[in-house]
Amino acid sequence: MVLFAGVKNVVSWTQANGLERILTGLVDYVEADFRRWPAFEKAPRVASHSDVGVIELMPTSDGELYAFKYVNGHPANPSRGLQTVTAFGVLADVASGYPLLVAEMTVLTALRTAATSVMAAKYLARPDATTMALIGTGTQAEFQAIAFRSVLGISTLRVYDTDPGATEKLVRNLEPLGFEITVAASAAEAVRGAHIVTTCTADKTNATILTADMVEPGMHINAIGGDCPGKTELDPAILTPGSVFVEFPEQTRIEGELQQLPADFPVTELWQVITGDAAGRTSSEQVTVFDSVGFAIEDFSMLRFLRDSLAGTPFAQDIDLVVDPDDPKDLFGLVAGSDAPVPA
Amino acid sequence: MVLFAGVKNVVSWTQANGLERILTGLVDYVEADFRRWPAFEKAPRVASHSDVGVIELMPTSDGELYAFKYVNGHPANPSRGLQTVTAFGVLADVASGYPLLVAEMTVLTALRTAATSVMAAKYLARPDATTMALIGTGTQAEFQAIAFRSVLGISTLRVYDTDPGATEKLVRNLEPLGFEITVAASAAEAVRGAHIVTTCTADKTNATILTADMVEPGMHINAIGGDCPGKTELDPAILTPGSVFVEFPEQTRIEGELQQLPADFPVTELWQVITGDAAGRTSSEQVTVFDSVGFAIEDFSMLRFLRDSLAGTPFAQDIDLVVDPDDPKDLFGLVAGSDAPVPA
Repeated sequence: MVLFAGVKNVVSWTQANGLERILTGLVDYVEADFRRWPAFEKAPRVASHSDVGVIELMPTSDGELYAFKYVNGHPANPSRGLQTVTAFGVLADVASGYPLLVAEMTVLTALRTAATSVMAAKYLARPDATTMALIGTGTQAEFQAIAFRSVLGISTLRVYDTDPGATEKLVRNLEPLGFEITVAASAAEAVRGAHIVTTCTADKTNATILTADMVEPGMHINAIGGDCPGKTELDPAILTPGSVFVEFPEQTRIEGELQQLPADFPVTELWQVITGDAAGRTSSEQVTVFDSVGFAIEDFSMLRFLRDSLAGTPFAQDIDLVVDPDDPKDLFGLVAGSDAPVPA
Repeated sequence: MVLFAGVKNVVSWTQANGLERILTGLVDYVEADFRRWPAFEKAPRVASHSDVGVIELMPTSDGELYAFKYVNGHPANPSRGLQTVTAFGVLADVASGYPLLVAEMTVLTALRTAATSVMAAKYLARPDATTMALIGTGTQAEFQAIAFRSVLGISTLRVYDTDPGATEKLVRNLEPLGFEITVAASAAEAVRGAHIVTTCTADKTNATILTADMVEPGMHINAIGGDCPGKTELDPAILTPGSVFVEFPEQTRIEGELQQLPADFPVTELWQVITGDAAGRTSSEQVTVFDSVGFAIEDFSMLRFLRDSLAGTPFAQDIDLVVDPDDPKDLFGLVAGSDAPVPA
């Protein structure tokens, strides 16, 4: 049987464990997988574009486990009460080819994105960072805040969004949890004095959320919202040689802030910072940028963590996604009756 | 909500409708989609190979619906009681990017393969064909037999397999259904006098199931088993210019009987025969070969047919694969509690 963790399951699992504990544990899984980055099969996502959005498949494998995520991106969806991005994923056993786990991944993508951000910041931000600016207070914002507090102890936030309703929602969600939140009147005001700047806006345009004059020495910029062709957030003047850290360069050059720069612009792969093969932050004055677009290995880590965490819990059900005839060659017997399972 | 049709559901659905009726209806869907072949997004499958097998994703879209299939191929699986090939698939709405249907596809792949075979034979075999040789009596064999009887009225079978147990199974399954079956002592004996020859063997080698001297004028060869690199069934001498019909040439040249021939060997695309843009059989003496490897559009047709056929039946359940927060921007609220669904 294959395990199924739907939305209700994942929400119950999250509530039973607590987001802080999950994010802290998840960072360890993501970091362990980044540390063995060369062991993974890597390819740009397989995208199917239409006039209104995109549907993508993101597969990867480490030779023991295989995972893929299905994810859509439809900017006009919220206007009819739907999510811009939904996702689900599958973890499978390479030795048998059988699926092991099917899971909703809209919530899980928010978790793995936040876990990857804070993992990058652990290596790239100044160790004495205490304040984070959050530009964009939509779906991803609270997960970022919880992750940065859980792992780096950052509980002071300076927030801004063009949609005051989204900011009110964030304050309503996070203030009861003990965050110290300053609502700024502009992105520039939010950024001022922050040690870490997280940009997670949703506009599907080449926007300039952060201009070069807003960037202060020593800042770490966690740029999440520039994540598909035609969608960027940063003034390219911020992206100086030596400052840019990425997941999978082949994908980031198409989808990330990098799409604004020549194809040979030098970048550092984050996994090499983690293994010690490349330098991360080299001085307290350096500006560092994590040009995050999200990569299949992070979803792999998420599904691997979920599978381990679900073991022995009631937060998943068996589903009959794989046939199991008595005689492996007699699929017909299963269908036609003699070997047929009792209908549910 | 997303519909889920697992193994029990699909078996119950099959039994409630009957295989003959399903295969007949399915051929119409496959044919309708082949007829509008240029409307589909087409790409070779996305494969992840390991020492023991392969896991593949097969996506396609017609601009309104998107479908993909997950399918594995692990030749050593039966030695431990597992299926060589299992599959599941997803149908999604291009306009919203939301998944609509998740279904087991091991049974459904057997159905769509048989439906595609008989559709090809409808255009390529002699109209007066009455006898089919079946070389290979494993998983796919009975589905082929039922499809060819339902659509072309062929009820006389000449069968052979190196595994007598598999042949006994086929006879046990099909004789009660009124087929006239001759069990042959060799492939050559089975083929003799047959109008249609279906090869569906499982050996992952460059085998020669059918040699050129066994082929008689006017035969249609339905070659199913040569379906991945290193796996073929036909003596390449059978594949003469003008005789070979394929699904998607780019894929067949890598996976089908064509892998034995130069990359520029001339082939005819089956969809063009169906639209009338290319000739099919041109004489009653011509030998025709359908070099079938299976293509994503056939899975698309299968899922489209299943969705339509499931409507209003009890053979599928809702699963919560997609989040639905009250406020589309408040995913955190859904997870953290205020907007959380009641756990199952």
